Amino acid sequence: MKTPGIVSTISELRGQIAQWREGHELVGLVPTMGALHEGHLSLVRETQKHCQKLVVSIFVNPAQFAPHEDFDRYPRSLESDADKLSTVGADLIFAPSVAEMYPAGFATSIEVGGPSRGLETDFRPHFFGGVATVVAKLLIAALPDYAIFGEKDYQQLLVIRRLTHDLGLPIEIGGGAIVREADGLAMSSRNAYLKPDERRIAGTLNVILKDTTAKLRSGATIATAESGATAALIAAGFKSVDYVAVRDASTLERIERLDSPARILAAVKIGGTRLIDNMAV
Amino acid sequence: MKTPGIVSTISELRGQIAQWREGHELVGLVPTMGALHEGHLSLVRETQKHCQKLVVSIFVNPAQFAPHEDFDRYPRSLESDADKLSTVGADLIFAPSVAEMYPAGFATSIEVGGPSRGLETDFRPHFFGGVATVVAKLLIAALPDYAIFGEKDYQQLLVIRRLTHDLGLPIEIGGGAIVREADGLAMSSRNAYLKPDERRIAGTLNVILKDTTAKLRSGATIATAESGATAALIAAGFKSVDYVAVRDASTLERIERLDSPARILAAVKIGGTRLIDNMAV
Repeated sequence: MKTPGIVSTISELRGQIAQWREGHELVGLVPTMGALHEGHLSLVRETQKHCQKLVVSIFVNPAQFAPHEDFDRYPRSLESDADKLSTVGADLIFAPSVAEMYPAGFATSIEVGGPSRGLETDFRPHFFGGVATVVAKLLIAALPDYAIFGEKDYQQLLVIRRLTHDLGLPIEIGGGAIVREADGLAMSSRNAYLKPDERRIAGTLNVILKDTTAKLRSGATIATAESGATAALIAAGFKSVDYVAVRDASTLERIERLDSPARILAAVKIGGTRLIDNMAV
Repeated sequence: MKTPGIVSTISELRGQIAQWREGHELVGLVPTMGALHEGHLSLVRETQKHCQKLVVSIFVNPAQFAPHEDFDRYPRSLESDADKLSTVGADLIFAPSVAEMYPAGFATSIEVGGPSRGLETDFRPHFFGGVATVVAKLLIAALPDYAIFGEKDYQQLLVIRRLTHDLGLPIEIGGGAIVREADGLAMSSRNAYLKPDERRIAGTLNVILKDTTAKLRSGATIATAESGATAALIAAGFKSVDYVAVRDASTLERIERLDSPARILAAVKIGGTRLIDNMAV
């Protein structure tokens, strides 16, 4: 158990990484928005398999929240995040201010088409633009050998892989398996918003996706499976279903049949909280 | 006089640069679209003041040409370009294919607001998006210490400085002074399109900008100076004037008075050719 150092400027981050590079150590980056939970810690452990030195960035990125979304109330807890990271042996926390990431006059935005089309973009149209721009900045700031993003945000993972490849950033992008609560609920910082009765309903999201996957495997059509899942989610008590969609696992394009790897992805609302989940079919 | 090596993949480029880095040599990049002239060679010489090793990239970027523009007829002359670069001691030419820069499924685009607003963007709306995306790729591919862009494309230079700063690329962006023919015409690969009578008229662009600058210095208002220059250009034989504009030299915002550094910028057409020029006021 060691306490990771905390730096808040790109220049300090680069200084530390340059020092590690002198010793020919491989460097990993785990980008997060803080409010760390076991899902994040599993990303840290996975990254440690690939690298000797590990940076966790903590930055709640205003550019990926729409004005009506939860930027202001998004949980922030740098001190307890640092405590959690000390238990897994992270080497450095990069916690920049908004002004450090978006200096005066900032005017650049990055858009990724391809896998960003549809699904989340239909409901959060500015989301991936904000994500792509800040992730490009973080990757350029640290230039790690390896960076990891959770499969919980599966569409985001594909967008970031596309971005990294398109820009030619010499960084391997890993995907971290979803970590779940006992009842199957995917861990998420936003789960903290759930009231007890909402929390109970939230657990059925994963159960319904698993059931739907089983039905697909035993021959249900994609259209039937998607509409069945939507009905089951509403019956379980979710307020609304943004989407339940079975898509090509690598492009997220619509598919007719399950003849190549597919993924089922869902976004639902309960109370004031929006939850997402996904799994391989 | 040494013949520079030529590589066509990002991976070869990085391999060579990594070797130089082992020897702690500073690396400079001169991005070009080829069809090199004395203006480009002056960028090479300027860069050599800052760096020990120098890469010239040659890539005619389809993304910055609109469908009706001159992508197909833009002059390409890799062999004679290499000859010219051997006279100035360039170390490496990076001449990627379109497929190397835009691999299958490429879906990323970078937009820079701020200095890209107005002027060129009013007439070539996709231009700076294409420029920003390819320049970011080139800068990320080479990660030089220093890169230079000609002041002839003054607005482009400001857009690239903004982009580089916004993305946090650790690269100094230099601006190379405009190199001119004997009559004042700014050197440009597109000058090769000019017929003899067009070429004669083209030389008056710089003369008229110089006259206009003198008038501004002796008290003419910006509005009077701009409209006077437009009238003079038409009288000199140009087919049309896209713009003549006096702007803030660092933001390109409109100004009322000459109380901070200003720049006069112009774009004109003659025959099928579009010419640009600019100078400090």
